[in-house]
Amino acid sequence: ELVELLEGFFVPKRLAGRKVVMTAGPTFEAIDPVRGITNISSGKMGYALARACVQAGAEVVLVSGPVSLPVPLGVECVPAASALDMRAAVLRALPDADVFIGVAAVADYRPLQASEHKLKKTGEALSIALTQNPDILAEVTALPAAPFCVGFAAESRDLDAYAEGKRRNKRLPLLVGNLVSDGMGGDDNTVVLYDDAGRHPLPRASKAEVARGIVDHLAAMLPPRV
Amino acid sequence: ELVELLEGFFVPKRLAGRKVVMTAGPTFEAIDPVRGITNISSGKMGYALARACVQAGAEVVLVSGPVSLPVPLGVECVPAASALDMRAAVLRALPDADVFIGVAAVADYRPLQASEHKLKKTGEALSIALTQNPDILAEVTALPAAPFCVGFAAESRDLDAYAEGKRRNKRLPLLVGNLVSDGMGGDDNTVVLYDDAGRHPLPRASKAEVARGIVDHLAAMLPPRV
Repeated sequence: ELVELLEGFFVPKRLAGRKVVMTAGPTFEAIDPVRGITNISSGKMGYALARACVQAGAEVVLVSGPVSLPVPLGVECVPAASALDMRAAVLRALPDADVFIGVAAVADYRPLQASEHKLKKTGEALSIALTQNPDILAEVTALPAAPFCVGFAAESRDLDAYAEGKRRNKRLPLLVGNLVSDGMGGDDNTVVLYDDAGRHPLPRASKAEVARGIVDHLAAMLPPRV
Repeated sequence: ELVELLEGFFVPKRLAGRKVVMTAGPTFEAIDPVRGITNISSGKMGYALARACVQAGAEVVLVSGPVSLPVPLGVECVPAASALDMRAAVLRALPDADVFIGVAAVADYRPLQASEHKLKKTGEALSIALTQNPDILAEVTALPAAPFCVGFAAESRDLDAYAEGKRRNKRLPLLVGNLVSDGMGGDDNTVVLYDDAGRHPLPRASKAEVARGIVDHLAAMLPPRV
């Protein structure tokens, strides 16, 4: 904690007076009381970004899927398991937010029905019917008084095409892309920032450093405070 | 670590000279590079049991699904993601084992096919075809020179019926049962031991204490060393 506090002293307060709402981690979509569909996401990038935002002077609400990471000092953490939980928590936290950052690896689909009791092995082949989850980021950008929205895209290939495509589809001013192989689970990451001016690769670095790079870029894009 | 070492001094060496192979944690069955089916399992009970076995003097190989827990001092940990990985690691570790304990929440089913690349949202309903995973515990008990086998059962209801049914089906000398609501994710657990003599409830306690209770019961059931 002392290290976090000290670090924070030396960070320019580029987000002073701003409220940031963000998501991080995976979601867990229940199949039954013990099984579910999830994503590989350690939550490390999102937690590093939450810390960087706080250290840059922002008020931060972090809606977090199930991870086992310590909540950064000064961050308000709201736990959420499924995409539906996460959406509800985001919408509750959103009023007055200046920035929304969707880092969480939200499951695109959930089981159509979750069984109340543990399913038993039947020896037969099975199939799980899925239904599409809400797109939290798309809902936030569609709000009448939408905050500045930042998306994340983790891809297994063709990063530029997929990431810039996602940014345009969702009409995001800023999107952070990375290859699954570069970032997931580890302590370092290699990301590329995409905005209307083009692509801006950040050097490979610790997730803490990458997070500071994202905050600097983001802060420079925000409209001046009123 | 010092606490672990000190604790270990005062534990009777009821498993001295024994080799224990065990599994713990969830498995992760890939749908694509970032998504998969998993179980809710923190791994805490299995890791506590591994620690209790080491403190009771055993040599312990812990085949562990993806969890974020420190490996107990003196335990050899072999990481495994899917049920197939876990089976392979168990079979490699098994020669000379006196005891096999299956604590892991192994997924009963896995996607029939894992996609090499990240699946894209299509806007359509989806369905995932599943195929049954191997039953690691059943395979171990069926070996010609099978070790003493201990099963775990986490149920959402009717614990006695399901647990004793599982024990008889799999011909296990000992099974540890608990209700999902009593144990999963938390630091405490309430378990019932099932053996040929009947049911033996252990008092609700920390997972460390419950683990010591299981080791005591198990050690008393082992055939004398040759």
